[in-house]
Amino acid sequence: MTYCVGLKLDRGLVMAADTRTNAGLDNIATFKKLHVWEKPGERVLCLMSAGNLAVTQSVVSLLSERLEATDNSSPSLYSVDTMFQAARLVGSAVRDVRAIDGDALAANSESFAVTLLLGGQIKGEEPRLFQIYSAGNFIEASKDTPFLQIGEHKYGKPILDRVTQSDMRLGEAAKLVLLSFNSTLRSNLSVGLPIDMLLYNSDSFSAERQARIGEDDPYFADLSRSWSEKLRDAVTEIPDFEI
Amino acid sequence: MTYCVGLKLDRGLVMAADTRTNAGLDNIATFKKLHVWEKPGERVLCLMSAGNLAVTQSVVSLLSERLEATDNSSPSLYSVDTMFQAARLVGSAVRDVRAIDGDALAANSESFAVTLLLGGQIKGEEPRLFQIYSAGNFIEASKDTPFLQIGEHKYGKPILDRVTQSDMRLGEAAKLVLLSFNSTLRSNLSVGLPIDMLLYNSDSFSAERQARIGEDDPYFADLSRSWSEKLRDAVTEIPDFEI
Repeated sequence: MTYCVGLKLDRGLVMAADTRTNAGLDNIATFKKLHVWEKPGERVLCLMSAGNLAVTQSVVSLLSERLEATDNSSPSLYSVDTMFQAARLVGSAVRDVRAIDGDALAANSESFAVTLLLGGQIKGEEPRLFQIYSAGNFIEASKDTPFLQIGEHKYGKPILDRVTQSDMRLGEAAKLVLLSFNSTLRSNLSVGLPIDMLLYNSDSFSAERQARIGEDDPYFADLSRSWSEKLRDAVTEIPDFEI
Repeated sequence: MTYCVGLKLDRGLVMAADTRTNAGLDNIATFKKLHVWEKPGERVLCLMSAGNLAVTQSVVSLLSERLEATDNSSPSLYSVDTMFQAARLVGSAVRDVRAIDGDALAANSESFAVTLLLGGQIKGEEPRLFQIYSAGNFIEASKDTPFLQIGEHKYGKPILDRVTQSDMRLGEAAKLVLLSFNSTLRSNLSVGLPIDMLLYNSDSFSAERQARIGEDDPYFADLSRSWSEKLRDAVTEIPDFEI
């Protein structure tokens, strides 16, 4: 499993992904699921992935190889003019991987499972956030639903539902995302630290605000402890239910 | 879908079940999923169900009919000596229903899906809480894991994980269970009000503390509003995460 969240806010984007992969409970590993492409001053794109690791890595590799193609005839994440076109490129990379590996996976009774979140900004547009499905089609986050989740989304959804607002500061939204991860980490062993995070400020066209939050991160340790205490206090303050 | 929770605490049991059933999003209805059998002064048993409604209703009907059988040769929920034996009776009713309906369901490509929570106390024992599976086998709640959930358990689990303690008062645990329902109701349309609830005090051998919490319940409305506020306040009190 995996847990990734993307928030599209008035002030920019918050993207976060865990790093645990597993082939069964007895075979876990750490892999990066948050990938960033940047042309400083012009565009920042961030792709996060859930699903079959061989599939998601192939998608990322295809997209990266196309950036470096010397022949500029085919579009790449560095050449497209809008985030919508970038999402179409990602979707088409998903379809390419299916064309390459789909039959062999099916012959092995394995599913072609992949879901991606693509967030970013290209000069001339506002920041945008997309969720791309296994079929290569996609949806876009809007004001009504400013966050998208992939992977193990249920444990961490109630807190996002209640508190997320489009006008939050990025640091505040990042805190909220870490609370959402905290609930998920406690409940699903297949989601694990470290967490990779990107805070993207609108119109900065810079991906410098990236961090990896691991076991020994003092902020995350404080947040976990203090959140448990505050929840217990909040429960205590509500009158008991008596029949 | 369904959401049911049972808590086994030092002071007794808290059992709660929603009442929404659905055959597709366009066909929802209200059915009782919490059933109580009581012999005042001697035993109280409470059964909650998730899964195929035809299956779960048949299980409950089989168990009820056996109570009324004039021939006392076969055991019933009123005659067994322990909760373990009661759980075996429920498991065997599940197997009976599979024997009756299983093949026809399979022929119709429908799954024989049923999960049950059985809580209660029979004189001579402490209160006990069991989860019974489709195969008719079961597990029992213990000090380490004092609550069991069936149905849509994920949204409402983080709050139970963090706050549940075996030495809670029943009214406090009931509040916690309603908070867990509140998160679930917000996130999964197939879980719906009213909620049926039983608070069972150890050694009371009485099921009089039952309530149905509906749309117009002032306690539940206050709890929902006040919980959202407190969560937002708690989030605000934690420092933002900056990179």
